[in-house]
Amino acid sequence: MLMRRRQFLQAGVAASAALAGTVMGAGPILAAQPKAGRQVPGIYRIAVGDIEVTAVLDGYIDLGVDLFPDAKADEVAKLQQANFVPVGDMLRASVNCFVVNTGDKLAIVDAGGRNLLGPSMGDMPAGLAAAGIDPAAVDVVIATHMHPDHIGGITTTNGAAAFANAELVVHKDDWDFWMSPENLAGAPEFFKPFFQAAQAAGTPYVKTVRKIGGDEEIIPGIRSMALPGHTPGHTGFVVSSGTNTLLIWGDIVHSPMLQFAHPNWSIAFDTSPEVAAGTRRRAFDMAETDRLLVAGMHLPFPGIGYVMRGGGFKFVPAEWRYGL
Amino acid sequence: MLMRRRQFLQAGVAASAALAGTVMGAGPILAAQPKAGRQVPGIYRIAVGDIEVTAVLDGYIDLGVDLFPDAKADEVAKLQQANFVPVGDMLRASVNCFVVNTGDKLAIVDAGGRNLLGPSMGDMPAGLAAAGIDPAAVDVVIATHMHPDHIGGITTTNGAAAFANAELVVHKDDWDFWMSPENLAGAPEFFKPFFQAAQAAGTPYVKTVRKIGGDEEIIPGIRSMALPGHTPGHTGFVVSSGTNTLLIWGDIVHSPMLQFAHPNWSIAFDTSPEVAAGTRRRAFDMAETDRLLVAGMHLPFPGIGYVMRGGGFKFVPAEWRYGL
Repeated sequence: MLMRRRQFLQAGVAASAALAGTVMGAGPILAAQPKAGRQVPGIYRIAVGDIEVTAVLDGYIDLGVDLFPDAKADEVAKLQQANFVPVGDMLRASVNCFVVNTGDKLAIVDAGGRNLLGPSMGDMPAGLAAAGIDPAAVDVVIATHMHPDHIGGITTTNGAAAFANAELVVHKDDWDFWMSPENLAGAPEFFKPFFQAAQAAGTPYVKTVRKIGGDEEIIPGIRSMALPGHTPGHTGFVVSSGTNTLLIWGDIVHSPMLQFAHPNWSIAFDTSPEVAAGTRRRAFDMAETDRLLVAGMHLPFPGIGYVMRGGGFKFVPAEWRYGL
Repeated sequence: MLMRRRQFLQAGVAASAALAGTVMGAGPILAAQPKAGRQVPGIYRIAVGDIEVTAVLDGYIDLGVDLFPDAKADEVAKLQQANFVPVGDMLRASVNCFVVNTGDKLAIVDAGGRNLLGPSMGDMPAGLAAAGIDPAAVDVVIATHMHPDHIGGITTTNGAAAFANAELVVHKDDWDFWMSPENLAGAPEFFKPFFQAAQAAGTPYVKTVRKIGGDEEIIPGIRSMALPGHTPGHTGFVVSSGTNTLLIWGDIVHSPMLQFAHPNWSIAFDTSPEVAAGTRRRAFDMAETDRLLVAGMHLPFPGIGYVMRGGGFKFVPAEWRYGL
């Protein structure tokens, strides 16, 4: 309800005055409810005009501070203090997916890491189930890029498509880079697992993959936006309906705590750290200028909010929506 | 998982290299998943040592800016802009409840507004069900104070106890104030509904009510803390287990957006606005100094976080806990 002072001064409360003494006689008992022992499924919805977007938490990833070569230890400690997270050399980040239901088509943007990076991820299928979303109803699997924490979940442990009736949509530069047997063969040993993960995930979609560019309609209501640097074809997706817009920006940030304050601090995974930093600065600037609602795979779950300036930039999580 | 650079440089990804070409042939289909059309249940858990606390969202309340007599319109607009909420004369706030499971006893601290203040509240029973919590298993209903958005839910629409096996715990000054037939009779007309709501809610618990003071053990693991001003007996509850502590502070703030920045801006509902403002300043100071985890009935759902200084004070929501 909307409670205003003038209503409060009139008759704000529709309380029953029935004070009949129907006393329930039962006293306290000792039976204890078992503790749940685990978190609730990470799911949350918003409407973007006529389109429904469901954030689904796949889990989390702990990134060593040393993955950010430019990060200064004292500044990191200061940010950790201010964010009430443990001070140390570890940065915990959400791994989010976003299901987009336009009414005509059901898409999922990224699908988490399955078990490719250990047991801290892989909750996406349980999240879909909790949200009442049938993987077999998904028409389009959209990948912002082909890193394991984004495409691991598109394929099952036995190598089948996790979304059996879906086409895969991914930027052609990412597909060509990660699916190349030559690139796998030529990669340094420490980097081969990334190619192997991408190729295992992409293989069941080889016949249906749609390789896209950086500015085209994916389905009515979703359009690609080139956001290069993190990977060769890293791509954002703009969900729009009427005057409402949501930019799902993928991996513009990996550590919100560090990178909003320090947009130039790129992560070691970036294919082109300088390009990625430039893309990040432009994305922040655009989001701030347009007061654009953004969603990110490593923004704090549900990963939806706004960008404002202040000590570099700041992320402002959107307030909980009671309706959608 | 914890991902560190040195692991990334070794063999960070346990990807299967099995790239056998098991192509799933099914192409895209047009079947659409129906949109959900509503938000997920607002439930969220944390552990406080060995104790489990479940935040349950009852709904929201829209407060007119005019309920804060000291609020300056231009400053309100500035804060609304900075928080990416609509600029205007309305402030939306969560109505949260907190279930505390010590393992031996199950308590609920406040219970939302049922339908006493309109359809924007009353989700608490559905939230309990979604969290797997049986109202009949609740041993203790704890009220921070007897306002309708806090005690409406302790009683059903037909006047029975919503927690049939629980005792009610409330500060004696609140019980005596709100349950008094003389105070109801003597109240101005606009204020009578508050007394009527409290008396309707309290009546089924008359035989089992435990009237407490401001510094005593309620059950092992929960202790009362006097936080007067908002109502005569407004009380916080400290949940503690081992070295872990959570202060459930009730209505120290009604509009987090306004009152962290301006702790002196009291709400018109306060019985003693000056006492309430003093209590608020002391609570903020204590929380900030001790880096205390706090939970509030009108903090942004799930209503759990920290207090820091900066332009008055600021609320820092705690990060999502993947485990508990």
